[in-house]
Amino acid sequence: MKEVPAFEAYRQLEPGPIVLVTTRHNGKPNIMTMGFHMMIQHAPPLIGCIIGPWDHSHCALRATGECVIAIPTVDLAETVVDIGNCSGDTVDKFERFGLTQQPARTVAAPLIKECLVNIECRVADTSLVEAYNLFILEAERLWIDPIRKERRTLHHRGDGSFCADGDVLDLHERMVKWRHLSR
Amino acid sequence: MKEVPAFEAYRQLEPGPIVLVTTRHNGKPNIMTMGFHMMIQHAPPLIGCIIGPWDHSHCALRATGECVIAIPTVDLAETVVDIGNCSGDTVDKFERFGLTQQPARTVAAPLIKECLVNIECRVADTSLVEAYNLFILEAERLWIDPIRKERRTLHHRGDGSFCADGDVLDLHERMVKWRHLSR
Repeated sequence: MKEVPAFEAYRQLEPGPIVLVTTRHNGKPNIMTMGFHMMIQHAPPLIGCIIGPWDHSHCALRATGECVIAIPTVDLAETVVDIGNCSGDTVDKFERFGLTQQPARTVAAPLIKECLVNIECRVADTSLVEAYNLFILEAERLWIDPIRKERRTLHHRGDGSFCADGDVLDLHERMVKWRHLSR
Repeated sequence: MKEVPAFEAYRQLEPGPIVLVTTRHNGKPNIMTMGFHMMIQHAPPLIGCIIGPWDHSHCALRATGECVIAIPTVDLAETVVDIGNCSGDTVDKFERFGLTQQPARTVAAPLIKECLVNIECRVADTSLVEAYNLFILEAERLWIDPIRKERRTLHHRGDGSFCADGDVLDLHERMVKWRHLSR
């Protein structure tokens, strides 16, 4: 995994990939699948996400204030669905799904080696957790696998079907107002 | 445009398409491009989105509490970027970009005829507007064009490049825990 500035998290999350979220609570790692998330601001990089009390990770996130958002690619599609089908309450998901923990730098939650991107996050605001299960996270470190071949992420269409990334349209020359965000 | 239950908004927004947002303030319609948004809950359908004071629409949304989220497809990619490059302060964007207003049912903001999907929304919670420009909207009506041929949406990679929707992976049979959300 190669580290890039956490500021660049928006390039990974704005396109709306389905993601995995890892936590570590009382020494026990867990993973959940998440589709309700967005960028909130570029710098410092803030991410909004919905993690409800029906998710075993909700407790872990409240208790530890730390998680990792990992972005899987097309080859992991079935695993992504299966992770969402079972609970960390009864299953060691790293073991069941043959995923590999890698130590993060600033949080106790593990990176997932098999994912294209891993973002170390810390809870920054819990004011809408009671009302909507909305956590605001700050991205602290961003890791990208520079050599993995499959790089297409998945977009959940909310009903168990997914779109893979397709053709790329490069219009960054045209983006005048937000030029400072383009390469 | 065919109306479908507003409850199904998550099928359109969870995949993270770049969207257009229309408002109408003092009789004047406007459009902006938006990439920072997410579903917050399925029912009633709540949507979170970031619209800052640098967006002319921010004022309109605060004043009227109403907007339409419209989802463009690949054929509108250049228009989507150009809409983000200019301000409703000085430009009538419907006129400049040759887009067609259609009356919405429950809000004054117009639908965009050329878009695949239009969602009539009302502001439901402004408690994080001051801190993060985060508006929480309730989707009230959802319109989908049943006959338009191009249906691939665009995912902004945060830097002026976009991924179009690619291959579809249908795993809804596998989605056990959330079966009630699959077809």
